[in-house]
Amino acid sequence: MEQRIKGIAASGGIAIAKAFRLEHPDLQTEQVTVADAEAESARLDRAIDAARGELETIRKQASEQLSQSEADIFSAHLLVLDDPELIGPVKEKIRSEQVNAEHALKQTADGFVALFESMDNEYMKERAADVRDVTKRILAHLLGVTLQSPAMIREQTVIIAEDLTPSDTVQLNPEYIQGFVTDIGGRTSHSAILARTLEIPAVVGSRSAMAQVENGTTVIVDGTAGEVIVGPSDATLKAYEEKRRLYAQEQAQLTQLVHEPTRSKDGHQVELAGNIGSPADVAKVLENGGEGIGLFRTEFLYMGRDQFPTEDEQYEAYKSVLEQMEGRPTIVRTLDIGGDKELPYLNLPEEANPFLGIRAIRLCLEEEDMFRVQLRALLRASVHGHLKIMFPMIATLDEFRRAKAVFLDEKEKLEQGGVPVSDRIELGMMVEIPSAALMADQFAKEVDFFSIGTNDLIQYTMAADRMNEQLSYLYQPFSPAVLRLIKMVIDAAHREGKHAGMCGEMAGDEAAIPVLLGMGLDEFSMSASSILKARAKIAGLSKSEMEAKIDHILSLSSGEEVRSYIEQSL
Amino acid sequence: MEQRIKGIAASGGIAIAKAFRLEHPDLQTEQVTVADAEAESARLDRAIDAARGELETIRKQASEQLSQSEADIFSAHLLVLDDPELIGPVKEKIRSEQVNAEHALKQTADGFVALFESMDNEYMKERAADVRDVTKRILAHLLGVTLQSPAMIREQTVIIAEDLTPSDTVQLNPEYIQGFVTDIGGRTSHSAILARTLEIPAVVGSRSAMAQVENGTTVIVDGTAGEVIVGPSDATLKAYEEKRRLYAQEQAQLTQLVHEPTRSKDGHQVELAGNIGSPADVAKVLENGGEGIGLFRTEFLYMGRDQFPTEDEQYEAYKSVLEQMEGRPTIVRTLDIGGDKELPYLNLPEEANPFLGIRAIRLCLEEEDMFRVQLRALLRASVHGHLKIMFPMIATLDEFRRAKAVFLDEKEKLEQGGVPVSDRIELGMMVEIPSAALMADQFAKEVDFFSIGTNDLIQYTMAADRMNEQLSYLYQPFSPAVLRLIKMVIDAAHREGKHAGMCGEMAGDEAAIPVLLGMGLDEFSMSASSILKARAKIAGLSKSEMEAKIDHILSLSSGEEVRSYIEQSL
Repeated sequence: MEQRIKGIAASGGIAIAKAFRLEHPDLQTEQVTVADAEAESARLDRAIDAARGELETIRKQASEQLSQSEADIFSAHLLVLDDPELIGPVKEKIRSEQVNAEHALKQTADGFVALFESMDNEYMKERAADVRDVTKRILAHLLGVTLQSPAMIREQTVIIAEDLTPSDTVQLNPEYIQGFVTDIGGRTSHSAILARTLEIPAVVGSRSAMAQVENGTTVIVDGTAGEVIVGPSDATLKAYEEKRRLYAQEQAQLTQLVHEPTRSKDGHQVELAGNIGSPADVAKVLENGGEGIGLFRTEFLYMGRDQFPTEDEQYEAYKSVLEQMEGRPTIVRTLDIGGDKELPYLNLPEEANPFLGIRAIRLCLEEEDMFRVQLRALLRASVHGHLKIMFPMIATLDEFRRAKAVFLDEKEKLEQGGVPVSDRIELGMMVEIPSAALMADQFAKEVDFFSIGTNDLIQYTMAADRMNEQLSYLYQPFSPAVLRLIKMVIDAAHREGKHAGMCGEMAGDEAAIPVLLGMGLDEFSMSASSILKARAKIAGLSKSEMEAKIDHILSLSSGEEVRSYIEQSL
Repeated sequence: MEQRIKGIAASGGIAIAKAFRLEHPDLQTEQVTVADAEAESARLDRAIDAARGELETIRKQASEQLSQSEADIFSAHLLVLDDPELIGPVKEKIRSEQVNAEHALKQTADGFVALFESMDNEYMKERAADVRDVTKRILAHLLGVTLQSPAMIREQTVIIAEDLTPSDTVQLNPEYIQGFVTDIGGRTSHSAILARTLEIPAVVGSRSAMAQVENGTTVIVDGTAGEVIVGPSDATLKAYEEKRRLYAQEQAQLTQLVHEPTRSKDGHQVELAGNIGSPADVAKVLENGGEGIGLFRTEFLYMGRDQFPTEDEQYEAYKSVLEQMEGRPTIVRTLDIGGDKELPYLNLPEEANPFLGIRAIRLCLEEEDMFRVQLRALLRASVHGHLKIMFPMIATLDEFRRAKAVFLDEKEKLEQGGVPVSDRIELGMMVEIPSAALMADQFAKEVDFFSIGTNDLIQYTMAADRMNEQLSYLYQPFSPAVLRLIKMVIDAAHREGKHAGMCGEMAGDEAAIPVLLGMGLDEFSMSASSILKARAKIAGLSKSEMEAKIDHILSLSSGEEVRSYIEQSL
C-alpha cells in the first residue's frame, strides 16, 4: 500500500529511486580512567589529524563543485579543530583527571556548545553548530566508528534523513543522489538552499519519513508539491514518471533561453542578473543566462579569517569578477557587516538590537580606513569591466553624500598617483530602510541607480525580525505597505531617468515578478538557478496588462489579498 | 573669580544658592575571619531590616509626592532585599568561609552585578543597578556609615554630585533643593526627567562640577542654557536674579492658561492632553490644564510584581483615572510589554532583536487570556468616564481586526451577563510602525482614531535603535521621511473624518509643534509639565501660515534642513 507524507517543498522536480536511510550514529562515550595520559593525548591528536584530513578533502570538494561560501563552512570547522581554547582544555582534562579522550572531548565540547547556544547571538549559535559537527567527527575516529557519508553512495538513491549536516550536503552528488527527504528543516534551511543550487528535488520538514521509510523501498519525491510517496502503486509510479519527463522537458526548454534577452509578451525588456558571494559563483550566473551581477556580496573576503583582507587580495577578487563578466554590468555592494554578521577581528560591541545597530555603511563611515581600502581596491579593478558600486543601509542623504565623498577622494588620489581608473563607475545605493524609500525622490537626484533590498526593507517596514520564526506572519513581501514603498522607489528613479533594480529574495519569486514588472522594475537580481525560470515567466506576461492592475493591487488591504488577486488574475 | 561650567540643559529655570556636595562614601570592605558565623548572619539580618525600613519610607514618600513609577523603583529594591538568590549565597558564604558579612555581601553582589551587566539586555542592566544600590544601603548599615541623603537637607541649596541615584532623586524636596548639577548623565537620564517633573532647574553631564565646586560656594544653575556659574561676581549675580524673576513671571503667566482652550492665533483649536503611567499622575495633568489623557500606559499594573494583576485591580485603576478625568477623553493603551520591557512571571523567550520582536499587541494576541482580562477590566470601567482604547504596535489590518474581535467578544459577554458597559468606547491604534503609517488610508476606515507614537516610528523608519547612543545621529524627528509618514496618517484620518493624535515625545517638542499644527494634528499628548508651554506656543502660531509651509518642509532633504528652516521662518 502506498503511503503519502506531506512536507515542505524545498527544491522542485520529481525524483524516483530506492530509499537510502542516512543515519547518524549515536556516538555514546563512557568515562574510563587511563593510566597513561600522554598516550591518551596522543590518541586524541591522531583522531584530530584524521578529521583534519577529511575536512580538507571536503573543503576542496565544496570549493570546486559548489561555491566559496560552502567551502567557508569547512574553513570554520578547520579553525575549530585547531582552536587551542577547545583542544587545550580537553588535553588538560585528560591529564588532570586521567580520563579517556572521548569523555574529555565530549564533556568539554558540550560545555562550549551549551555556552554558545545560550548566547543571544546568531554568530555564536553557528559556532555551536560547528563545534558539534567537528566534535562528532573527532569522536567517530576515537571510537573507530565510520560515519555514513553521502559521498560513499554509488547508486541512484533518494536519501532519507533526520537532517543533513553541512558536511553531508556538500557531498551530495547529483549523479547518484536523485533527491532527499529530511524530517526537520524549512525552506530556507541550509540543505534546502543547497538542493535548489544543485537542482536536486527535495522535501524537508516531513516529520515522519525516518519512521516510515525503510531502506530499499521505492520512493517518489515531489519537490514541487512537497510530497513524498512511499511504495507507490504501478499507476502512481507511471503517473510520476510522466511528470518527471515533463519537468525535464520544461527544464530543457528553459536552457534554450540562456542566450535570449528578457522580454515580456508585449516587448518590454528588463535585465535579469545574478546574486553572488564570490568570484567562483560567476560561472553559474553566466551558465544560467545572467545579463549582469545585481549583487556581489563582498563579505566573504572579510569572513572566516583573523585579519582584514589586504587591498591586493580584494583587488584580485573584484578584477576576477569583472573580467569574467566581460563588460556586463556588475554591481558590487560595499561591506555589509554588523547586525547578524560579525568579524572577530573587528571587535564590534554587543548590541541590544543588532538589526537596528551599527551595520554596513554606518560601520564603514565609522571605520573609514577599512572602507577606504575597499574603495581603492574597487577603483583599481574598475578598468577590468563595467563596475557599479552600491552602499548598503543608507538611511539619510547625508550618509550617501559622505560615502560618495570618501569614494571621490580615493578616486582623485589614485588618479593623481597615475593609477588608471574607469570613468564610468556608477554609484548607487541599496534601498532597504523605510526612510530611504520614503525619500527616494531626493535620493534619485544624487545616485546613479537604486537596488531595492527587500529582505531588510520588509523587516523594518513591518518592525518584525525576519529571523524570528514566531513573527513569520509579519514577513509579508506582498503587503501593500511594502509594495507602496517599492513603487515609490521605482517611480522616483524613473522621474530622474535612473534605473531601479532589486536584489532581495522577492526579485526571484515567481509570484512577485508580475507585480514588479507591472511597477516597472528595470533589473531583477536573484540566485543563478532562478534566472531562466524568471525569463520564461516574464516572456509569458504582458507588462501593460500588469501595469493596469497596479493601482488596484496597492488599494488592497493585506498581503494575502494581494497574493490571491495575483493568482486569480493571471 | 567666577567660573563657568558648561553642561547639558536638563531642566529649565534659574537656581541661585549655596552649593551642597552630595558625596557617596566609598564603602570599602575587608575580609575578616569571624568565629561565630551564626552571629554574623544575624548581624546581616539586622542590617537588611534597617535597609528595609528605609526603603519602605522612601517608597511611601515617592508614591505620595511623585508618581507610581517612581515608587516602583523602590518596590524593585525591596524585592532585591528579600531575594533568596542573593541573600542565600551571602549567608552560605558567611557560614562556609567563616567571613564577615560585609565581605560576603560585597563579593556576592559584585558577582551578580557583573553577570547582569554582561547580559545584552536592558532589563538585566537595570537589575544590576538595583542590586548595586541595595547592596550599598545594606553595607552602610553594616559599616555604621550614614549615607548622605537629600532628605536631610533643611536649607536652600544647590546639590552638586557625581550622579544622583534613584534613591537620591525621589528625596529632592523643591522647598530646599533649588537646583542640582551632576557630572554625569544626559537629558533623558532618570534624574533629568525627574528634575523636569519637579520643576527644579538642573544641569547634568557637567563633567567637572565635583572637582571645581566647594561646599558653601554660591552657585548659579542656568538649567535653560545648561550652564553653571561658580562664585559669581556681584554683577553676574544681579543679572541672574533678574533672569530668575523673569522666568518665574513667565511661569506665572503660563499658569493663567490652565483653564484656557488651546487655540492658534488664527482660531484653530486643538486638544492638549497628558501622558500618564498611573492613576496618581492624573492630578498633575489636570493642574497643568490637560484637556484629556492621550496615553495611559498600563504597564505599571503588571510590573514590579510576581504575578498578573487581577481583573479587579485593573478595574480599580482604570476607574480611578476615568473618574478623575470627569468625562474628558481618556486614551488607555493596552499592555505594551516585550521589547525592552519584561515581566519576570511571563517568561518571555530571549530575542535577538527585542525591538523587532514579540511585543505589545503581538504578545497580547498570543497570550489572549491575559489580553481578555485587561479588556474586561476596561469595559467594566468604561461607565465611569469617556474611555478610548488603543492597541500598540499594530502592523497589519488583520491584527487590528483580531484585537477588535476579542474586544467585541468580551463586550458582548459582559452585556449578556448584565454588566453595564459604555456604548461610546472608541477603539483606536498607535501608529508606530511604518507599515501602519503607509496603510493609514485603509486603517482609517476601520479605527475610531489614530495616535502616532513617534519614538518607535522614528526608530523603525530609520532602522536605528533609539537606545543606541552611537546611532543618535539617525534618531531624527525632523527627518522629512518621518514627517511624510506623519502627514500620511493625519491626512488619512481626516479623509475619513477621524481624529489623529500624537503621544510620542515629539508632540511636546516646542520646535516640532509648529509643523504638527501645520499638518493638522488634532491632539497633542505630552508630559504634564509641558502642557502649558505648548498652549502658549500654539497661541502664538498661525495654523494657516504653518500649513502653507508644509509642502516646502516635506521637500527638504534632511532633518537639519527642516529644523533650521523652521527656526528661520518663525
